[in-house]
Amino acid sequence: MSGQGMVLGVLGGGQLARMLAQAASPLGIRTLALDPAAGGCAADVAMTQQAEWDDWAALQRFADQVDAVTFDFENVPAATARWLAERVPVYPPPEALEVAQDRLTEKTLFRACGLPTPEFRAIASRDELEAAVAGIGLPAILKTRRLGYDGKGQFRLREPADIEAAWQALGAQAETVGLILEAFVPFERELSVIAVRDRQGGFRGWPLTRNWHVDGVLSLSLAPAPQVDASVIAEAMGHARTLAERLQYVGVFALELFVRDGQLLGNEMAPRVHNSGHWTIEGAVTSQFENHVRAVLGLPLGLTAARGPAAMFNWIGELPDRRAALAVPDLHWHDYGKTARAGRKVGHATVCAAEASALAGRLEQAAQILGRATQAEPAISLLRQD
Amino acid sequence: MSGQGMVLGVLGGGQLARMLAQAASPLGIRTLALDPAAGGCAADVAMTQQAEWDDWAALQRFADQVDAVTFDFENVPAATARWLAERVPVYPPPEALEVAQDRLTEKTLFRACGLPTPEFRAIASRDELEAAVAGIGLPAILKTRRLGYDGKGQFRLREPADIEAAWQALGAQAETVGLILEAFVPFERELSVIAVRDRQGGFRGWPLTRNWHVDGVLSLSLAPAPQVDASVIAEAMGHARTLAERLQYVGVFALELFVRDGQLLGNEMAPRVHNSGHWTIEGAVTSQFENHVRAVLGLPLGLTAARGPAAMFNWIGELPDRRAALAVPDLHWHDYGKTARAGRKVGHATVCAAEASALAGRLEQAAQILGRATQAEPAISLLRQD
Repeated sequence: MSGQGMVLGVLGGGQLARMLAQAASPLGIRTLALDPAAGGCAADVAMTQQAEWDDWAALQRFADQVDAVTFDFENVPAATARWLAERVPVYPPPEALEVAQDRLTEKTLFRACGLPTPEFRAIASRDELEAAVAGIGLPAILKTRRLGYDGKGQFRLREPADIEAAWQALGAQAETVGLILEAFVPFERELSVIAVRDRQGGFRGWPLTRNWHVDGVLSLSLAPAPQVDASVIAEAMGHARTLAERLQYVGVFALELFVRDGQLLGNEMAPRVHNSGHWTIEGAVTSQFENHVRAVLGLPLGLTAARGPAAMFNWIGELPDRRAALAVPDLHWHDYGKTARAGRKVGHATVCAAEASALAGRLEQAAQILGRATQAEPAISLLRQD
Repeated sequence: MSGQGMVLGVLGGGQLARMLAQAASPLGIRTLALDPAAGGCAADVAMTQQAEWDDWAALQRFADQVDAVTFDFENVPAATARWLAERVPVYPPPEALEVAQDRLTEKTLFRACGLPTPEFRAIASRDELEAAVAGIGLPAILKTRRLGYDGKGQFRLREPADIEAAWQALGAQAETVGLILEAFVPFERELSVIAVRDRQGGFRGWPLTRNWHVDGVLSLSLAPAPQVDASVIAEAMGHARTLAERLQYVGVFALELFVRDGQLLGNEMAPRVHNSGHWTIEGAVTSQFENHVRAVLGLPLGLTAARGPAAMFNWIGELPDRRAALAVPDLHWHDYGKTARAGRKVGHATVCAAEASALAGRLEQAAQILGRATQAEPAISLLRQD
């Protein structure tokens, strides 16, 4: 009835669904977000349906309305994704999602694909934790194998005496979602590859992104990542492509990498559009959101080149003042329409410029008027060296 | 409840309301579009309310829900705009809208502001039409003073014998919306200024746009307009600023200009975001839609610089094939979600590049695969000369 309309189904109705809907709309594609909770922030720009992940009648109605299904949220139950995939195209494929949902299978895949990782061991009991600490050494991080994100479900061990507290915190989850002990890597840099693969196997990556986390949550991204050798860029892209092909992946994903002594280590893969790719909305020819929509619906991919350097501030807990922010030249504001709450991602802003020194100047201006000097500093100092 | 939320009210629910809502959403601003007709294409991304322009109870409910009101459609009855302006900020101010709604007061204002126009005369009777033809000469165009757009309500007179047919076509409207006879200007170029003025009087203009019309409807725009002297650019911006200040205008507007013998002539002013500014969505740092939202809601204006050259194709009647179009590098697709119908604006596409020759190449590619060689040709040949 409308244009060359299609409907994209999204499982989950948070800010990623919201930004997918914002990207889909100009293409004449409407979005239907399914979420067990009411009031997700996608509702401002998308159609929504409230249903539990195992409400099969509701899921059938959802499937009947959409041309393809994707994810705002990678922890959708595998059974739900598989059930939908029998009825309508679901991308990324549920099998790929299951690998990426589990830190153990994910890291095992990384190694099988030739991407080194920090040392790790599966942990099924307290005895295994003690043995793993002895084998891997400290510091190390005990993590849930599944259902973890943004530093949740993690416990850092600095000395053997921490084993008891770590087991108290997470031991009960050994039998439910599983546990993994990972060596703590004193990395020099965190990088991410944001890349997309289409239904025909076409692969494109955006320029590498440099990331800084605070308390396990992304705080700042800078792209294209400065001062990265061409050989490292090629290696990172090669790993991303190998993983995507092994998983027969379709859609956008993020591969988070550490750089230690100039070597790349695989940290994790996020099987969806990713916070460290939000800069692509204004900073690249085609955003991660638009290319994900295109890939999932079988449309041709857009160019992933950067338009210039861009930096993204994450707004955690609450938004700075919008009016002040909008006065910064080439600053692009993203308010997810959420209620403020400690630790919650409520928005982001991307600052763009034609070249590095201009971007540094704009970031300084933004940081000063928004009271975010500490948050902005790592990008500014790196741009000043560039 | 949501972010730093505001609600923008829009009178009219067509594609301009749709693109305003798309621009408002990342800012955390929701849009409520009021329209007497159901099923406007803004409904995919905005809240909507269906009501007649004189349903005062409905208008009161509308006013109660919004922080400011603007227009998708300049022919909203003046009484409606004035009534709302007593209750909520309405921008552009209804007085400015009334001037721009009437070709006679508009052209009279242009001249009062020092902007020459083609010769024109108000026409109240057939005798006056004959006298005006004798005075102005032929060719000339008889137009309705109000309620005309996209070449509607116009009759072109080539020879004296056309007077009868012109009067038959439009004479009955002399007593309703009024008529005006305008000299036909054999112009060399059509240009438009897209500009924005904020509530404090801050003024910004985007780079000049070169436009090509077919059958009275915009077909193609190219920006920044190539081969325009700096003095002409400054003069055009100066006229736009003078007009905006005289009208105490707030928001985005378009000033359409003819160039004849190197001299600017004022054609008309559109008191709203404008089709010839659609290229700013991807081609400029801040789009006309975002800056209109910012201006109307009293937020700081964003930069209006171009990111590079951009060309916009209008899709009239029906859309070309989306899949083919999306394969063109840096082509940005806009499907308004409308049913195809002869003469209807159903979408547009903007093609961007880093410099002119690359843009020409992409336009050739787009024109070829979409079968739009004739539509694209004026921009390609101009870019090739540049």
